[in-house]
Amino acid sequence: MDEFALIRHYFSRLTDNDASIVVGIGDDCAQLRVPPGMDLVLSIDTLVEGTHFLPGTDPGRIASRLMGAAVSDLAAMGAEPAWFTLALTLPSADEPWLAAFAESLGACARRFGIRLVGGDTTRGPLTLSVQVQGLVPAGRGLHRGGAGVGDLVCVSGTLGDSRAGLDIQLRADIQPDPLPATSQRLLQRFFAPQPRLSTGLLIADYASSCIDISDGLLADLGHILRASAVGARIERHQLPLSEALRAYTGIEQARDWALSGGEDFELCFTVPAARWETLAAQLQHHDVPVSCVGEILPASAGLRLENDGAAVQTPGLDAGYNHFAPAGGT
Amino acid sequence: MDEFALIRHYFSRLTDNDASIVVGIGDDCAQLRVPPGMDLVLSIDTLVEGTHFLPGTDPGRIASRLMGAAVSDLAAMGAEPAWFTLALTLPSADEPWLAAFAESLGACARRFGIRLVGGDTTRGPLTLSVQVQGLVPAGRGLHRGGAGVGDLVCVSGTLGDSRAGLDIQLRADIQPDPLPATSQRLLQRFFAPQPRLSTGLLIADYASSCIDISDGLLADLGHILRASAVGARIERHQLPLSEALRAYTGIEQARDWALSGGEDFELCFTVPAARWETLAAQLQHHDVPVSCVGEILPASAGLRLENDGAAVQTPGLDAGYNHFAPAGGT
Repeated sequence: MDEFALIRHYFSRLTDNDASIVVGIGDDCAQLRVPPGMDLVLSIDTLVEGTHFLPGTDPGRIASRLMGAAVSDLAAMGAEPAWFTLALTLPSADEPWLAAFAESLGACARRFGIRLVGGDTTRGPLTLSVQVQGLVPAGRGLHRGGAGVGDLVCVSGTLGDSRAGLDIQLRADIQPDPLPATSQRLLQRFFAPQPRLSTGLLIADYASSCIDISDGLLADLGHILRASAVGARIERHQLPLSEALRAYTGIEQARDWALSGGEDFELCFTVPAARWETLAAQLQHHDVPVSCVGEILPASAGLRLENDGAAVQTPGLDAGYNHFAPAGGT
Repeated sequence: MDEFALIRHYFSRLTDNDASIVVGIGDDCAQLRVPPGMDLVLSIDTLVEGTHFLPGTDPGRIASRLMGAAVSDLAAMGAEPAWFTLALTLPSADEPWLAAFAESLGACARRFGIRLVGGDTTRGPLTLSVQVQGLVPAGRGLHRGGAGVGDLVCVSGTLGDSRAGLDIQLRADIQPDPLPATSQRLLQRFFAPQPRLSTGLLIADYASSCIDISDGLLADLGHILRASAVGARIERHQLPLSEALRAYTGIEQARDWALSGGEDFELCFTVPAARWETLAAQLQHHDVPVSCVGEILPASAGLRLENDGAAVQTPGLDAGYNHFAPAGGT
């Protein structure tokens, strides 16, 4: 089956009709209708074999990780998902691989409410780029630059799980067989991140800034601090840790991973103290827990890490996952 | 310099302020304003080292090829360019490479009137994906599916030049030194394709279908024929050939390359015969030549190749460039 037939067979059926799609897959461009009063938001993300996942990784897991990470950027803007495109570079036209990949991609797209509208397929080392498009009310949307002194620093869900999922893979030879259910949940956090779309929409009217945690809490909060020209204090013992993470490793390692592990794809956001009570009431009916882990300080404070009010260290803002850092990374 | 600093240094200065850009580079998503009455069109394209260009290719040439090919999809829709994103996978943080690449990318962006609004940088085998966004009047735009029996088949510019540019690289050891100016022009067609934006806009009110020639005239016209459920006749001796191509190779090879060479990024479009005279008058003042090379026939005719009215062969519709074809390709 040649390139065109492969694309037609496995991907064109993933798109479904929608009034917003004037022209979908199969023309030079997709043609899309942005509703009046809405702004377009978009983000592109890439996964590379050997950098983001091990060679031989199940194609369904690659698809769920790709889609989870990409759609998470829409969640961080408080956006509704709309459309996505896929640039797929493959060493060969491997039909079983494509079938499994496309099935998982389609399942994620349906779950996240986002439609495939185009793509490009090329031959080369396994590399996947997905661009996601979403919609926010014109001039609104959550950004990195609005945090103010005194705002609370909050995070959704639990942190460090994805880093533990990576550890399980890197130390596959010393894992118990069968793998305990808690470790399987950590792997799931690594391979099938859940973008916090409903959380992003819920906090959009309350939060002063927001980012998704892809490089680790310290690194990503650092982006908020730079964009907002402020500092912050993080309470290390208030970091939300899952039972699965606590079952896998000791408390200090768990907290280190929660601070700099990366790829949890939870939201980190700031809320003015005066708005917190109203938001907290809304969050009681929300299915994702939200924890307050710190406070925004003046820029001169930098990023302070504390244990019950005592400074434990002052890590650099660029700590966390970084592909090109000389020391490597995950 | 780490990943974030690299991105900031070389790419963030490529973006410039524009009322349409609510949030540009540096947040989780770019936030963009689509003017009322316009549809969004978008397309993603990938170049891979070893598949689309030889290892060691000058980074400036990679950037111009990437941008020319991607923006060409906007031209084929009759769209105005608006914004683009870049997903860059690099083996290492090579500063001289990045500096030269970014300079060429910026020059192309300015020339084509398109603004960088976001991207992703990862470590891995050299792979580049660019997604371009453009605007067309709502419900309008040129598509593949509108060709009707009796329409003229037209192409912009000259065909086969890019294929000759590839040949010059593949046979570098037998080229005259210094390379003649005509061969340099052919290399230029390969490395710096000129998207036919003004031609796309000019023909938008007249053409019944359009595509850009990336896979070769036969393959791309084949896409129009399938989408429009029609056939066509192409006059082989009417294919527009450049003087540079004629200086490089014999007439038969030149015509073969014009038919199936690929990556010329000229427009192939169809025009109802009744509209041709008005369009032709407009084209007299246009800086890109347009040639009529055939006619749309009923679907039963397939795709017929003729020399002065005599059939010369009936190539398969999927002839031309194809990454995953068993026989390889360019």
